[in-house]
Amino acid sequence: MANDTIVAAATPPGNGGLSVIRVSGPHSIRSTSFISKRHVSFFKERMATLCSVFNNDGVFVDKCVITYFKSPSSYTGEDVVEVSCHGNPFIVDSIITSFLTNGVRLAQPGEFTKRAFLNGKIDLVQAESVASLISSRSLKSVEFSNSAISGNVSTRLRALRDDVVSVLATCEYELDISEEETSKDLNSKCILSITNIAHHFKSLYSTFNKNRFYFSGASVVIAGKPNVGKSTLFNALVGLDRSIVNEAPGTTRDYIDSNIIIDGIPIRLIDTAGTRESLDDVEMAGVRRSQDVVRDSDLKVYVYDVVDNIIPKDHNIYVLNKIDLVDHQQISGTESRYIPISAKTGAGIPSLKSAISSSLSGNNPQQPDTVLTTKRQADSMLLCYNHLLAACDILNEKTPGYDLVAFEIRESISHLDKVLGKTHPDNILNKVFNNFCVGK
Amino acid sequence: MANDTIVAAATPPGNGGLSVIRVSGPHSIRSTSFISKRHVSFFKERMATLCSVFNNDGVFVDKCVITYFKSPSSYTGEDVVEVSCHGNPFIVDSIITSFLTNGVRLAQPGEFTKRAFLNGKIDLVQAESVASLISSRSLKSVEFSNSAISGNVSTRLRALRDDVVSVLATCEYELDISEEETSKDLNSKCILSITNIAHHFKSLYSTFNKNRFYFSGASVVIAGKPNVGKSTLFNALVGLDRSIVNEAPGTTRDYIDSNIIIDGIPIRLIDTAGTRESLDDVEMAGVRRSQDVVRDSDLKVYVYDVVDNIIPKDHNIYVLNKIDLVDHQQISGTESRYIPISAKTGAGIPSLKSAISSSLSGNNPQQPDTVLTTKRQADSMLLCYNHLLAACDILNEKTPGYDLVAFEIRESISHLDKVLGKTHPDNILNKVFNNFCVGK
Repeated sequence: MANDTIVAAATPPGNGGLSVIRVSGPHSIRSTSFISKRHVSFFKERMATLCSVFNNDGVFVDKCVITYFKSPSSYTGEDVVEVSCHGNPFIVDSIITSFLTNGVRLAQPGEFTKRAFLNGKIDLVQAESVASLISSRSLKSVEFSNSAISGNVSTRLRALRDDVVSVLATCEYELDISEEETSKDLNSKCILSITNIAHHFKSLYSTFNKNRFYFSGASVVIAGKPNVGKSTLFNALVGLDRSIVNEAPGTTRDYIDSNIIIDGIPIRLIDTAGTRESLDDVEMAGVRRSQDVVRDSDLKVYVYDVVDNIIPKDHNIYVLNKIDLVDHQQISGTESRYIPISAKTGAGIPSLKSAISSSLSGNNPQQPDTVLTTKRQADSMLLCYNHLLAACDILNEKTPGYDLVAFEIRESISHLDKVLGKTHPDNILNKVFNNFCVGK
Repeated sequence: MANDTIVAAATPPGNGGLSVIRVSGPHSIRSTSFISKRHVSFFKERMATLCSVFNNDGVFVDKCVITYFKSPSSYTGEDVVEVSCHGNPFIVDSIITSFLTNGVRLAQPGEFTKRAFLNGKIDLVQAESVASLISSRSLKSVEFSNSAISGNVSTRLRALRDDVVSVLATCEYELDISEEETSKDLNSKCILSITNIAHHFKSLYSTFNKNRFYFSGASVVIAGKPNVGKSTLFNALVGLDRSIVNEAPGTTRDYIDSNIIIDGIPIRLIDTAGTRESLDDVEMAGVRRSQDVVRDSDLKVYVYDVVDNIIPKDHNIYVLNKIDLVDHQQISGTESRYIPISAKTGAGIPSLKSAISSSLSGNNPQQPDTVLTTKRQADSMLLCYNHLLAACDILNEKTPGYDLVAFEIRESISHLDKVLGKTHPDNILNKVFNNFCVGK
């Protein structure tokens, strides 16, 4: 348990009805007693108590509701105090300063959750999922993160770990006892078990990858020649959100973008300016920025005029616009891997939206209940998978070196343990908790 | 007491450790029971209770800490529930939606405080001061608002009201009993009392006016010919806050501004571009915007070159820049109503800052403990004052019409009652509470 006490604003910054300041550590209640001029016994466990808070000069700062969460029944597992004050940054700062002058220090980003982890309240996957939850930009990622916080991901990983440990035990048994004559049967049984477990790691990795845009959002670019109706399509997709369209800064109009949500995926929709002839230097710079945005996007929607000939050549989306200008017969005869729309009348827009979300989420109809919440977790799954495959490769050799097999399996376990935080080198902890906001 | 139940986010919008949703009204605890699938008896008065919250389809939304404040011991005087959830807008929205589908409606801006007022927990001056407190942009306005919330302003106004009522009683006594022969003594006694009370109203009005910039902030423009060092002075005053300098949008550089605090006064410092010759239409528009900003500012700081001849002609501030270029003798000989500085070396900047804050706060050394918090309150003080003066004028006539005197005094009381909310026409309540944020 940490021996110092930390403080930070727990609510988003700004003005509002109220803000909450959180304190955690052994001196939580003593410092609260100082700044409220009340005896420590005034604060009863979990009881919301109204009292005045003063600064270090004894000047009244605000009337607050203070709640004391006694160790170990608190978020961090330590003594925690929550001070609910009026929602004004000056008041929040004053109260934090009062704590700082009474032996409390400012919390690092994620330090409350880090303490919850170090005190065994949650494992590292759950801790990371708290950050994913807070930064969620879609209901889906809220759902996935909450599921991970409740322990669903950890339970699955722990079960897989048990399986890997059990295979490891078999191999080590072989290593110890029967180095000369190992049964072929046992070998193939091991290979089967390991392949099966490896498949689960791969599946966890793919599920994260398929769903990653729910967490990170995706950038979708509308591309095409001038006058094919890109801007009209942009407006049709943005719909009522049109008001939040921002012109990018710059002297020339490079591109405009707008944030929308399609089927739960947060999407930054980008409309690039058509390439023009005879450009001066400033315009060229704009066109280059525009090209960078197209290159770095997660998905491109190529727009063609209904009279153009489309030849879809990759996994991006091809759209045939202005179908309102021709009759239906003319369209149905052409290539089938495009989406016919009219940005002007709105025809085909729902199909286009479905195509965008399917393309980003890998057209995944069934809802997984176990989705990893960070790239770190997913990348480790791939490492676990690779080491298990390596183990299989060795087992498939004529005379398998069981010590090498055991080594590969142990590597796999070690990566799993780092994910769950059973072993936690400083660099991993720093990487995990630096992504947090202060106050959590 | 209201018969419907309201809900709103109480904390500022955004991502953070936690957000709080507030519910008030007769169905607070019943609706909380619905969304948490817990019996109402699960929630004990003022006890922070951990439980899961579900949406209307029964899907888990978040694990929350719920605190129940039983009527009348709550902010609004009604049954209040505070739900503390993870700090994410999607979670906040989901929980609010859960309440909305269980017979609760969305709160209007300021409706929680309006209910506190209507239920007699606070008077109208205190209610207004809550809004002033939340929107405070300086520690001083936090201090003044807190003092008003605690009742200092109301107590003073109530005492003044007692005094006015007592004078009114005397006049009405005269009116009823001794209409023919009123003693000259009584008349002058009344005039003395009324003048004395009127003085207090005037003083409350001036105190607000002197301190109004602590609440509203002030705009201070740096003006002067090109090349006198306006931008250097701007940077010197902004100091480390330079990073928040914003270029105003537009094709030409009209002015730049930055928010700083000088001696507790929130100041928007504006640096105007010098007027140039031979301007095209676009530039002319920029210059006009620049001139508007100068005209609408609360204080102008005119910058001159050390070689210029300054003739200060009003209450604005005159600055003689570039004193580093000349020796001290040369400067001390000139006009004394300017401030010699060097924006380049920083010499004289502290004096300039003091001059700015003195000029804005009326050079007010003693700290008043009773400061009104809104223009509405201040304007009403002036009306109270005017009606009392009118009463004195009538009393000074040869044969005073006591009914007219009484009428003027009653008018004065009526304005006081509107300030305190003793009488509260709908238009006044709407004006007061529409300034609030939702959730307070």
